[in-house]
Amino acid sequence: RLFGGLILDVKRKAPWFWSDFRDGLSLQCLASFLFLYCACMSPVITFGGLLGEATKGHISAMESLLGASMTGVMYSLFAGQPLTILGSTGPVLVFEKILYKFCKDYGLSYLSLRACIGLWTAFLCIVLVATDASCLVCYITRFTEEAFAALICIIFIYEALEKLFWLGETYPIHAASKLDLLTIYYCKCEAPAHPTNETLLFWESNQINPSSIAWENLTVSECRHLHGEFHGPACGHDGPYTPNVLFWSCILFFSTFVLSGSLKTFKTSRYFPTRVRSTISDFAVFFTIVTMVIIDFLIGVPSPKLQVPHMFKPTRDDRGWLINPIGPNPWWTVLAALIPALLCTILVFMDQQITAVIVNRKEHKLQKGCGYHLDLLMVAVMLGVCSVMGLPWFVAATVLSITHVNSLKLESGSSAPGEQPRFLGIQEQRVTGLMIFVLMGCSVFLTGVLKFIPMPVLYGVFLYMGVSSLRGIQFFDRLKLFGMPEKHQPDFIYLRHVPLRKVHLFTLIQLTCLVLLWVIKASPAAIVFPMMVLALVFVRKVMDFCFSKRELSWLDDLMPESKKKKLDDAKNEAKEEELKLGKTSYSDLSKQDNDRVDPSEINISDEMPKTTVW
Amino acid sequence: RLFGGLILDVKRKAPWFWSDFRDGLSLQCLASFLFLYCACMSPVITFGGLLGEATKGHISAMESLLGASMTGVMYSLFAGQPLTILGSTGPVLVFEKILYKFCKDYGLSYLSLRACIGLWTAFLCIVLVATDASCLVCYITRFTEEAFAALICIIFIYEALEKLFWLGETYPIHAASKLDLLTIYYCKCEAPAHPTNETLLFWESNQINPSSIAWENLTVSECRHLHGEFHGPACGHDGPYTPNVLFWSCILFFSTFVLSGSLKTFKTSRYFPTRVRSTISDFAVFFTIVTMVIIDFLIGVPSPKLQVPHMFKPTRDDRGWLINPIGPNPWWTVLAALIPALLCTILVFMDQQITAVIVNRKEHKLQKGCGYHLDLLMVAVMLGVCSVMGLPWFVAATVLSITHVNSLKLESGSSAPGEQPRFLGIQEQRVTGLMIFVLMGCSVFLTGVLKFIPMPVLYGVFLYMGVSSLRGIQFFDRLKLFGMPEKHQPDFIYLRHVPLRKVHLFTLIQLTCLVLLWVIKASPAAIVFPMMVLALVFVRKVMDFCFSKRELSWLDDLMPESKKKKLDDAKNEAKEEELKLGKTSYSDLSKQDNDRVDPSEINISDEMPKTTVW
Repeated sequence: RLFGGLILDVKRKAPWFWSDFRDGLSLQCLASFLFLYCACMSPVITFGGLLGEATKGHISAMESLLGASMTGVMYSLFAGQPLTILGSTGPVLVFEKILYKFCKDYGLSYLSLRACIGLWTAFLCIVLVATDASCLVCYITRFTEEAFAALICIIFIYEALEKLFWLGETYPIHAASKLDLLTIYYCKCEAPAHPTNETLLFWESNQINPSSIAWENLTVSECRHLHGEFHGPACGHDGPYTPNVLFWSCILFFSTFVLSGSLKTFKTSRYFPTRVRSTISDFAVFFTIVTMVIIDFLIGVPSPKLQVPHMFKPTRDDRGWLINPIGPNPWWTVLAALIPALLCTILVFMDQQITAVIVNRKEHKLQKGCGYHLDLLMVAVMLGVCSVMGLPWFVAATVLSITHVNSLKLESGSSAPGEQPRFLGIQEQRVTGLMIFVLMGCSVFLTGVLKFIPMPVLYGVFLYMGVSSLRGIQFFDRLKLFGMPEKHQPDFIYLRHVPLRKVHLFTLIQLTCLVLLWVIKASPAAIVFPMMVLALVFVRKVMDFCFSKRELSWLDDLMPESKKKKLDDAKNEAKEEELKLGKTSYSDLSKQDNDRVDPSEINISDEMPKTTVW
Repeated sequence: RLFGGLILDVKRKAPWFWSDFRDGLSLQCLASFLFLYCACMSPVITFGGLLGEATKGHISAMESLLGASMTGVMYSLFAGQPLTILGSTGPVLVFEKILYKFCKDYGLSYLSLRACIGLWTAFLCIVLVATDASCLVCYITRFTEEAFAALICIIFIYEALEKLFWLGETYPIHAASKLDLLTIYYCKCEAPAHPTNETLLFWESNQINPSSIAWENLTVSECRHLHGEFHGPACGHDGPYTPNVLFWSCILFFSTFVLSGSLKTFKTSRYFPTRVRSTISDFAVFFTIVTMVIIDFLIGVPSPKLQVPHMFKPTRDDRGWLINPIGPNPWWTVLAALIPALLCTILVFMDQQITAVIVNRKEHKLQKGCGYHLDLLMVAVMLGVCSVMGLPWFVAATVLSITHVNSLKLESGSSAPGEQPRFLGIQEQRVTGLMIFVLMGCSVFLTGVLKFIPMPVLYGVFLYMGVSSLRGIQFFDRLKLFGMPEKHQPDFIYLRHVPLRKVHLFTLIQLTCLVLLWVIKASPAAIVFPMMVLALVFVRKVMDFCFSKRELSWLDDLMPESKKKKLDDAKNEAKEEELKLGKTSYSDLSKQDNDRVDPSEINISDEMPKTTVW
């Protein structure tokens, strides 16, 4: 039936709607909201800045902020899984870049063509919703999901470090300086010795007489504006060396990472009552950011700060908030837009659903169910709206969503310190998501506060998010096995039942996929990345020939390890008990006997009905 | 009998003499030697530098290096406990400062008077050896020993951080600089606007014509030499702002601390075979120093480096390597020197013996026995030699000795990862100490290599040494109890038998003593510090009135916690077994029953004969 899945989703989620708001009134949600707000702001603005560079300001930071806020608010209010956080993704950026270049080369209006493509994509996505295509997510097994999540986390970590590294380009240091010569070092502006034609033209058109300028007294920006040149022993390749900024940024970056990590683990320390400990742990990242902002302010080194647009108007004056989908373009472009729209649809579908699968993981013990069809509908509708308004598109962002879920974890209150607290579930609600994106929309009016936040602190938060999202990914546990002597390997359930050789083979195949994905993501062909993720599903199918069904059920299963272990241990004990009663204890033998336990059986009977609701 | 203790010491240690060298031929000893050499160099040179400042170069870095090397070599070869590392201590520095000021005020020869005092001190120490006064160390209980060790560790940590902090004075940064004005910032040398009389005199005597100097082209050191002034927006209060050095030093400092700490704990990780892990762990600090030196060299920021004297000759030309104890002073000064010598004797005795007690702790499971009398004899003899040669005095240095012992710990090879490896004993030998001080003596010829070692890296090593020496001090475990809710407190043996209230009282008394000691150490009365340590022994005696004998035996006992616990657990089990056999299990009751176990009994019968050999 058309929209059958969607109707079921709505029916399933509707009864929880009010509780979604009631449940959001907790201190932990406040902590999660403050953390995620800080974490989401920077990517949205950075993405906007990159888009602005790629599209000559047609779509820039202001548009990105507005688009993220609108999409986020609507999604948080009505989506099937409001724990998902929407954000900007790499493939979308690549697509926009290609499209802009194409439009410029063929003299088409970028924003109008983009609006057409966006509307087609929205339409196609709604067709996918109508045909219950989201049911296909059941083919996304742990293998695919983990390879994707691992890749996104690694990219996150890599980009955090890369951004820090690039600060070294923006703020070059005079490394080989001699302290004794500090009185002699200088970097002054000078009139260019051999002005280029461009410079001469610029001077002429602005009626500048270079000989009448006191070049030596110009500041850096004035010198750059007047096309001057920098000369002196304290000059880098493009302007004066900037003292202290780079190293101070490094200090901020690593301090943020270490401090937020240690405050987070404070929950399991022995000190203070449980309530104090869990509050500190919940607010860990927010406390860290506040502390770092204060320290940075007190030290006073001019570190790069978060730059938020402070005027609510389109970046370019030649566009408004509504775009005509035809505009100056010929009429057939509307139809031709269907072709790129097909690509975009796959891109949006894959990015959205795989993240949704990760959020809806069985390990998270979600009570209020999922809603893949409803999720996709909301994304599609907002994609259409954003296209018509000339705003960027937003889909589920993996690392932000994982971080959001992690920050809302409920854990047993009376946990003994040192030991891992028992996981009770996730605080499922719509308040945090809603608040994050409402405040993001209001950020234009908060520039007075936001301009104190140093970028290296936010990069440190990204590093923390990337690293903490890696935890719980079984793939990494298996990777680590390569470095461990066999006797020191932890008691993973799959090691009990699958030969180590096979486990390593499985890991190696996954690693190869990950490397290939990385290469594609980094190459100019990044746009096909979502298709390659789809290809992972087929790789997993082919693996049925190398591994037995039983092995795969242990290695590539969604049942949480702890649950499996408990079942396994229970069976073990029962068997041992039996043996004990019978004759002498065969504890060693009984361990090997366990191989007969077939987890796929347990899995189907016990776990499947809980999640296969679509 | 005169020298009875000394003869016993020699008799006890002589049979081990050859094995002391054979046992030193291991990879762990090499690691320990490299680590401690790096760690010892800097304090010796810094101490020398401070002495040089205080005594106008009469005794400076070169003398300190020679003295440490000579004393260290002799001590390592012939002392009773070669695991002790000799170094310079605060009270000695204070004493030298006072003495120098006194000599200057009364027109006496500092080096000659010092030689007299040193010879008297050596004589008095030998008298203490002859009368077996070292037996008094048995009054130094865990209470005193831990208060002293904790204080020294805290001072070590404090000084490491303070040194880093002072780098901010030496290398001021231009914190509030605006990046846009970098082309306009400068700091130039200028002729003083209002030259002082001193300056005018200096110019005249050196035949300098200030108007003929191109002040603007002078380097920092030239400007300082010619009494110029620094002017410009990039000038600090005394010279130009130094870019990058401070922050780079901070990065080096904390990286060293974190890296050496994490490499050290690599032993208990799951990766790689045990041999690889323990090698990495043994060489942790040395690897870290090498890594940091290479990174510092590659980055090229002019961080402050270790400055080793590069010529083997006395710092001042007006003195030789032999000092006449009378010299130009009146004859009665030789007799008067007896009075300060009494003070010095207490100072040397306390500093030496309390550190020796810490090294000889029962927890360390030393096999080759101790030799307090022999230790003191060696220190006394070398103190006399150093005095005659005009070199500083060296006694046992607490933190260096603890670090030395820790770096020689033997642990069970097949330790499962994660869990604490079993402690087997200490690699007792004379090779590491000998090598450290031989190489220290050769350092004059190694300046080419040593000049690459940045000081902040060494400060980071000090921080690491201070923090790692704190581990194993029960006093800190008890301090931490204040922050823990009762249910989360670890299973310390004394918590099983002493009410928490009493434990806290004991800790508070110890804390008060520590704070008082700190105040004295930091005040101008630092010279009485060793006497105050002596006072701790009496405080402990007074505590017999506030605590029962049983309580004190649990709180202030030298038997290792683990051993006590084992005994206690064994008793527990035996009792439970009994109960089980009898009727139903009374496990809760039996715990309280344990209070009847009197540890002092176990202690005397089982532990005392092992160490009370004097």
